[in-house]
Amino acid sequence: MPLWTVYHAPGAYTADDKQAFAEAVVSLYPILPAFYVGTVFREVPAESFFIGGKPVDGFVRIAVDHIARQFSSDRMRQRWLDMVNEALGPYLEGRGFDWELHIDETPSELWLIQGMRPPRPDTAGEKLWLAEGRPVPLPVE
Amino acid sequence: MPLWTVYHAPGAYTADDKQAFAEAVVSLYPILPAFYVGTVFREVPAESFFIGGKPVDGFVRIAVDHIARQFSSDRMRQRWLDMVNEALGPYLEGRGFDWELHIDETPSELWLIQGMRPPRPDTAGEKLWLAEGRPVPLPVE
Amino acid sequence: MPLWTVYHAPGAYTADDKQAFAEAVVSLYPILPAFYVGTVFREVPAESFFIGGKPVDGFVRIAVDHIARQFSSDRMRQRWLDMVNEALGPYLEGRGFDWELHIDETPSELWLIQGMRPPRPDTAGEKLWLAEGRPVPLPVE
Repeated sequence: MPLWTVYHAPGAYTADDKQAFAEAVVSLYPILPAFYVGTVFREVPAESFFIGGKPVDGFVRIAVDHIARQFSSDRMRQRWLDMVNEALGPYLEGRGFDWELHIDETPSELWLIQGMRPPRPDTAGEKLWLAEGRPVPLPVE
Repeated sequence: MPLWTVYHAPGAYTADDKQAFAEAVVSLYPILPAFYVGTVFREVPAESFFIGGKPVDGFVRIAVDHIARQFSSDRMRQRWLDMVNEALGPYLEGRGFDWELHIDETPSELWLIQGMRPPRPDTAGEKLWLAEGRPVPLPVE
Repeated sequence: MPLWTVYHAPGAYTADDKQAFAEAVVSLYPILPAFYVGTVFREVPAESFFIGGKPVDGFVRIAVDHIARQFSSDRMRQRWLDMVNEALGPYLEGRGFDWELHIDETPSELWLIQGMRPPRPDTAGEKLWLAEGRPVPLPVE
């Protein structure tokens, strides 16, 4: 469900860094099947990457789409953003990078995994996908 | 209007595959001018592409923005998603790839083609663009 | 806040062109701190870039996310789109490129800069960030 796109300078992260970063992203969604969580790293050279109209080589810009869940209150939003800071800080300001992240919420009805519409939140179907760790055909409701 | 971004492993698709895939995407929007339909393929190596925190090399992740039209009922949504499966399945599970797709709906009022705001749905202006196959100046309404 | 992603043919823009383009993007947001404005240029070869199912090498496709502000009327939307045409036309049709741009509006509550939730529109906090030209800790309200 969540798709994280991470724009960063070439060489900012090693393969191991990206692996650890992606695992930290998964840790932010403990109630979802892990396979819902996608992370794509994209290198952008300074001549193609601008903040405030100035080329940057130490900036990480993260764009996220949330599909499966929407936050129902500002308290939950704030708590989750605190988790983001804690889980990802080591890969962001912890490396001396400046950074920005924003999240969009997109309609869960317009979503396919392996050709199937994922089960609704907190249903038996979602529990099955969580337990199986992969998308499996759902019994007709 | 629709912009399809397709993340895939390097070498997953040949130039001919991408051409056929992009034509299949156009076929999903028979009522729209074909030139509304954009598709961008992006190669992502396994060390930068994670699903569930694990690097993947046989996964296709598709992110779509819909601009010109929004679905008005779940029945239409389901019917269209069935069309997606039929049209694109050969390039996805038909190739042995795992895949996920999600769609966002964005405001049609914030959209420019060639500097012009595209005509509203089902207007004479849209019929003109459909017939011309390119964006042409519209008569002032 | 705004994140501009610009897909273009390889070699369509020099480093200086991209610099000037990115500065023109910043000029569209005079009331915001300049460091809110991110622009990422992405080269896409014709074999991976399709409009209407046909490969293109002279097309510029721009996708924008607006976070900090939403338009409150169609008149403001139109006026701002006119500014876009004026500021960016020289880099688009002025270069002989065909182009399309669309903008999504995403929730300002799901946004972090340097680990902080940016100040609300037109607050003392936002004025402080605008004056400082960088994100600084905000007094607790």
